[in-house]
Amino acid sequence: MKSFIKVAPDSHFPIQNLPYGIFSTVENPNPRVGVAIGDEILDLSVIHALIEKHVPELGQKPMIFKESSLNSFMSLGRPIWKAVRKCLQNILSADNSELRDDAELRAKAFVAQNLANMHLPAQIGDYTDFYASKEHATNVGTMFRGSDNALMPNWTHLPVGYHGRSSSVVVSGTALRRPCGQRLLAKNNPPVFGASIRLDFELEMAFIIGVGNELGNAIPINKANNHIFGVVLMNDWSGPFLGKNFGTSISPWVVTLDALEPFLVKGPEQKPEPLPYLRDNGPSAYNVQLEAKIKPYDSNAYKTVTRSNLKYMYWSFKQQIAHHTVGGCNMRPGDLCGTGTISGPSEGSRGSLLELTWNGQNEIDYDNGIKRKFIEDGDEVVLTGYCQGEGYIVGFGDCSGKILPAINSP
Amino acid sequence: MKSFIKVAPDSHFPIQNLPYGIFSTVENPNPRVGVAIGDEILDLSVIHALIEKHVPELGQKPMIFKESSLNSFMSLGRPIWKAVRKCLQNILSADNSELRDDAELRAKAFVAQNLANMHLPAQIGDYTDFYASKEHATNVGTMFRGSDNALMPNWTHLPVGYHGRSSSVVVSGTALRRPCGQRLLAKNNPPVFGASIRLDFELEMAFIIGVGNELGNAIPINKANNHIFGVVLMNDWSGPFLGKNFGTSISPWVVTLDALEPFLVKGPEQKPEPLPYLRDNGPSAYNVQLEAKIKPYDSNAYKTVTRSNLKYMYWSFKQQIAHHTVGGCNMRPGDLCGTGTISGPSEGSRGSLLELTWNGQNEIDYDNGIKRKFIEDGDEVVLTGYCQGEGYIVGFGDCSGKILPAINSP
Repeated sequence: MKSFIKVAPDSHFPIQNLPYGIFSTVENPNPRVGVAIGDEILDLSVIHALIEKHVPELGQKPMIFKESSLNSFMSLGRPIWKAVRKCLQNILSADNSELRDDAELRAKAFVAQNLANMHLPAQIGDYTDFYASKEHATNVGTMFRGSDNALMPNWTHLPVGYHGRSSSVVVSGTALRRPCGQRLLAKNNPPVFGASIRLDFELEMAFIIGVGNELGNAIPINKANNHIFGVVLMNDWSGPFLGKNFGTSISPWVVTLDALEPFLVKGPEQKPEPLPYLRDNGPSAYNVQLEAKIKPYDSNAYKTVTRSNLKYMYWSFKQQIAHHTVGGCNMRPGDLCGTGTISGPSEGSRGSLLELTWNGQNEIDYDNGIKRKFIEDGDEVVLTGYCQGEGYIVGFGDCSGKILPAINSP
Repeated sequence: MKSFIKVAPDSHFPIQNLPYGIFSTVENPNPRVGVAIGDEILDLSVIHALIEKHVPELGQKPMIFKESSLNSFMSLGRPIWKAVRKCLQNILSADNSELRDDAELRAKAFVAQNLANMHLPAQIGDYTDFYASKEHATNVGTMFRGSDNALMPNWTHLPVGYHGRSSSVVVSGTALRRPCGQRLLAKNNPPVFGASIRLDFELEMAFIIGVGNELGNAIPINKANNHIFGVVLMNDWSGPFLGKNFGTSISPWVVTLDALEPFLVKGPEQKPEPLPYLRDNGPSAYNVQLEAKIKPYDSNAYKTVTRSNLKYMYWSFKQQIAHHTVGGCNMRPGDLCGTGTISGPSEGSRGSLLELTWNGQNEIDYDNGIKRKFIEDGDEVVLTGYCQGEGYIVGFGDCSGKILPAINSP
């Protein structure tokens, strides 16, 4: 499968991927739906008539591509997602002349990615973060409770998760301020106020709910994939106090579950066997190679500090949804569910500075003798991830963010 | 101050109150903005021209009263809230003929409350629940950690809070299903799956954010009240597992901070003195008498199981906002912030069955020999609250909910 749009061999966005995002341009500042192809964006709001022709099931709905979030499109469900994906692969194919040879429409329909502003892809209702990597949970547990009590007793029985803050989820490229809060200098002393010292990144991915469920009804595990629209990279920045609501960065391009299907692999063996509502047959892990790079403010070079993989995650997306809803909790289009930090079995695959420096005991060496334990003001963190296909890559692009100094205002 | 609309002496909704809500009717199923007065609702979408005349500052905005949530109105800010409140008190006053003597407009503008369907008053972005009652935290801590370690060391230094689930916040009157999940029958045994056994209510109130702040900026404590639109009753239902996302009920009428101002009182003494960003001068507690009643499914009578008061809350609304945002977290119009269970100093003022039965050690006696430790299927819980003025009441109406049996579907 090849597109008439030029796609470099190392591009994250070949015709096999076609991730969805929300973008705007200087010429047209209205955020709208686009699909990444090579270095271009196909503006779906411009080609809605073509889509309508190929996907009559859409009915009178093609105006959803003029909306400022993917929520309406996502809420249409998996059969429509598949039909539109097939249609776009068709329209973009080197063999199809409809768009290829329509010079006027082509001029309007494509925007260079480097000229576009990317926005949050979804209006996020609720944001849940799981804690689904056994290696990460074990590392953190060992640091704070010792190796004998590293995993809490319930950890192997259910995917632990917590509610996160959706208002401060931002799109890649948004700078974030270092948070302030209370800190204890010594036990039994009163706390002091100040900026967070041990600011950290967390290498995560997150799935976005396309279709929700009604309050009071669970989503059974064998139907869970019908509710997941796609996946993004996520940096769930953290600091010790108030450390989870000052900002969470996600990548702008939502890679659909359909594009990820060729990269399904078997996940880690689960012992003890989970309860029936969490039993997951067949491969449910995805082989997504992940990487985090840091550019210290006083350096010109990005250094890769960790290489991990989504397939290390113990609890699958499907298990996360089944557990999240088994009590009757309703999910809505746009809800974001993070994996938690994804660490692998080796030291070089740990997904946070907390683990990489082992709670600040070690330092990371950057170029020119620069050393760091945690993140300093002006440092930039870039996450990336991709699946290696045969002769092509299905990638997630970047999820980047820079930390600005705290304001000690109040 | 008296209205030409008849208001019974024990009504929660005299002209001194004028809470806002979203309602619809059989004749007009579009949810829209109304204000409660006596047993009636004044439909603001019908009298928008009158409001526009009295509040020219609204400009071309009076159509916000046709919207299905209060968010747009709330985002206009305190000076507009005050101006509209004054205008409505004026329009509803017994001395003002504009609406009183316009029979045609009156016929359209008023709807009997018992003929209206109430909806969620706001589109809730994020829902945060604090844990701001010292008595409640002490009771729960004593039960699970013993009286020597009842309060966690940070409790007196900052208002502890957690992110809650906004999708499952429902309006009073919505029935909720008992959640299912995993339970441990004995230590070191594998967990079993089933319906929650110890289902509980939690007597809370919650404030709704009217005006937010930008990500990265804190709201200083002396400006916090400009961000709070009003207050509702809240039942933050809970059960031991997955116990916090199956449902949270709020009352439909948002009582504004302006209506509550006459009931400001000094809150509990705070020792140790909080850090400067949490120092709160002047009275910041509200004297709101609270009550929870339960009607067991096998009884015809409601029994009051607890009487508490919002003034017992240790951390004020202002302190909660100051702490929530001090790390740079942004608030948005419609965000909901719960107080946590409000227990008072006496046994009869405990705000949950967990505390009232002391973790199930005691039973509550209902009529006809009916006894309960926790909530059974079909039981109904009704919260209510009011401020006693001189010759009038500023009340919150009811916040009710019934528990339906679990579905053991997956």
